[in-house]
Amino acid sequence: MTKWQSLIHEQLRKERDEAITLLQEWVRHASVSGAEKSIQESIASRLATMGLDVDLWVMGGDELVRHPYFVSPRLTFEESPNVVGVWKGTGGGRSIILNGHVDVVPEGDEAQWTHPPFSGEVVDGKLFGRGATDMKGGNLSSLLAIQVLQALGVKLKGDVIFQSVVEEESGGAGTLATILRGYKADAALIPEPTNMKIFPKQQGSMWFRLLVKGRSAHGGTRYEGVSAIEKSLLVVQAVGQLEKERNDRMTDPLYAKLPIPIPINIGVIEGGKWPSSVADLVKLEGRMGVAPGEQMDDAKAEMEAALRGLAEIDPWFAENPVELEWYGARWVPGSVEEDHPLMEILHKQFVATTGQRAVVEASPWGTDGGLLTALADTPSIVVGPGVTQVAHYPNEYIVLDDIFHCAEIFALTLIEWCEVSEL
Amino acid sequence: MTKWQSLIHEQLRKERDEAITLLQEWVRHASVSGAEKSIQESIASRLATMGLDVDLWVMGGDELVRHPYFVSPRLTFEESPNVVGVWKGTGGGRSIILNGHVDVVPEGDEAQWTHPPFSGEVVDGKLFGRGATDMKGGNLSSLLAIQVLQALGVKLKGDVIFQSVVEEESGGAGTLATILRGYKADAALIPEPTNMKIFPKQQGSMWFRLLVKGRSAHGGTRYEGVSAIEKSLLVVQAVGQLEKERNDRMTDPLYAKLPIPIPINIGVIEGGKWPSSVADLVKLEGRMGVAPGEQMDDAKAEMEAALRGLAEIDPWFAENPVELEWYGARWVPGSVEEDHPLMEILHKQFVATTGQRAVVEASPWGTDGGLLTALADTPSIVVGPGVTQVAHYPNEYIVLDDIFHCAEIFALTLIEWCEVSEL
Repeated sequence: MTKWQSLIHEQLRKERDEAITLLQEWVRHASVSGAEKSIQESIASRLATMGLDVDLWVMGGDELVRHPYFVSPRLTFEESPNVVGVWKGTGGGRSIILNGHVDVVPEGDEAQWTHPPFSGEVVDGKLFGRGATDMKGGNLSSLLAIQVLQALGVKLKGDVIFQSVVEEESGGAGTLATILRGYKADAALIPEPTNMKIFPKQQGSMWFRLLVKGRSAHGGTRYEGVSAIEKSLLVVQAVGQLEKERNDRMTDPLYAKLPIPIPINIGVIEGGKWPSSVADLVKLEGRMGVAPGEQMDDAKAEMEAALRGLAEIDPWFAENPVELEWYGARWVPGSVEEDHPLMEILHKQFVATTGQRAVVEASPWGTDGGLLTALADTPSIVVGPGVTQVAHYPNEYIVLDDIFHCAEIFALTLIEWCEVSEL
Repeated sequence: MTKWQSLIHEQLRKERDEAITLLQEWVRHASVSGAEKSIQESIASRLATMGLDVDLWVMGGDELVRHPYFVSPRLTFEESPNVVGVWKGTGGGRSIILNGHVDVVPEGDEAQWTHPPFSGEVVDGKLFGRGATDMKGGNLSSLLAIQVLQALGVKLKGDVIFQSVVEEESGGAGTLATILRGYKADAALIPEPTNMKIFPKQQGSMWFRLLVKGRSAHGGTRYEGVSAIEKSLLVVQAVGQLEKERNDRMTDPLYAKLPIPIPINIGVIEGGKWPSSVADLVKLEGRMGVAPGEQMDDAKAEMEAALRGLAEIDPWFAENPVELEWYGARWVPGSVEEDHPLMEILHKQFVATTGQRAVVEASPWGTDGGLLTALADTPSIVVGPGVTQVAHYPNEYIVLDDIFHCAEIFALTLIEWCEVSEL
């Protein structure tokens, strides 16, 4: 164990209780989209107290909302400020962005939660609540990394840019706004819940909506109509076939362990209005995974072709083509070389802290890293505490130990990446 | 042409314009479920003016709502009175019920209507509007049959019981209430839109709801979940297979011309909440046709068996059986012998007025005739103007000539069935 490692480890132990209380506070801010103001103000205030240069602003304006990468269900963000805090380095070192989002997906049916969704209750070393894993726990790791280095009197050469963004769950407008505001760095870490696997590649994804048409009739003479529900079965099958074809091509070894590297998920189905009528319209909504390195437009074209192909299976579709709309969220895929210097540092610190090699995979979902890579020339690596399996679902929780383990790796990584200043 | 036929035909011609205006008025009462009061009051007042014994009442009470045949989404009916008018006969003749409902299904998306749904606009001999065909047009035929006989100074021996009921579209509580109030007769005519085909048998039907279960997961790792949308495809197929088996058994020649004599229609599908999540629940709602003579419980048992059989196709269903609920509307099937005296009279008058034989079929949907037959010992025959194809859909209309043709047949039928009194 190096000197830094034992110092950091010990310092994290001292700060543990207070850090858990902080995460409880964060979870108790029910920061669903449009309601992030209170947590952001609280984070901005904390960053200021730590001596960072704090930038809290309400994003907006034409440059943002007309940007080709802008995706959001809304155009104004009054209750959703972005926050960036810069821990200025002494100069000469590499800079790094620690990016994380504070928006959380809705809690869903509260009855399915054992602990109230915004309680932050701690039971058996787990902290429960919406956002605990996705990704306030990861944000805490980033914050702790800075905090312990400060507590140890460390000064870094490179800047550490802590970003607490909004709108990740809806497509990344928050991170896009940081980029338009001029923030960039030599690399970025994004502590989304990877269960501490290292993801140099991030899948992109985009949402689509399909409108499947039928023709109404009375249910008692249903043969006089055409059921959009029955037709939608064919559409679901065609989308499944497209998913299979796209995944058969995925030879990247980073995806070898994933049963379906770039899934196409149809998550919503809705059609028909009356039990005794033939449904004349079914709406399907889903997300299409985009491979790292794949152009989003190429993926779109494949979807369009698959839907056109339905006309060969069933002539109904020739006369009544399925309508396709790309709507809502979109995440740009991202990719960093596996031998990137930051990858090497992360590997080294992972081994140092666990005695084991890190698992390297590609992310099964999109992150804001795609935007940072594509637009800010900032290579981004996703690695963080928590497991995807509990994100977005009732009884979301995070194992607290994992947060501190991640903070330790991050602090060690900052020391090596940004370098300690002797000034 | 008999004396009566020419007199009735001529009298109907005289009353035509006023009758069309009346149907326009009726259509302009937007008498969707819960809003039938104004049309019912207007009908009651008209029946009273015609000298009928009028009974207007708000149904309700335990006898009704706890009756095994009671089906309705509501338990109180303040804004939905029932109306019965009895044209008392001089005695010694057979009585008849002329039953029709004034409740109409919702107009749906107004944008899909060329003429506003409650306008009653007349264009090229067609009257447009929700309820024009289902079944205010038929009700007008019944009313005109009485009106023209009165105008011709006819007195009948048997009672003619004009019933203007509510709640047919939701399962027949209105007609059930007339039965509980004591109304019955030697036979009944129900002018639902059969396009003047004669239906001695009426299909029953009942609504069902299926809950298909899945297991949530993030769309990017959808293989960690189980899609209720994909599982619901299997359920739709199993229900389709059940429909096929049930219809393969339908050898009744009255159903020979119907592609699917007793359809099972899945009219509503709804599941999943987020494009990028695996749906954990899909709701399907539909109607199951019940053959004349079939016990509703036997049909239910077949549905249950088909759903149980899913476990053999996919073990998921063994652990997560589809939930089945019989809810909402239900129509009892009904059946009258093809050589019933009223059938013979209808046939005769059809030939007399058209020179052609009537088409006899079995109804592809339920009517209140099932209740009248099962509970009031009143054999019921369904025959009326208008075509099912436009019922329940945008731009519902009725060809006005058909209403007067039906009225003519009904008036002639009353003369023969109830007999003219010489008193």
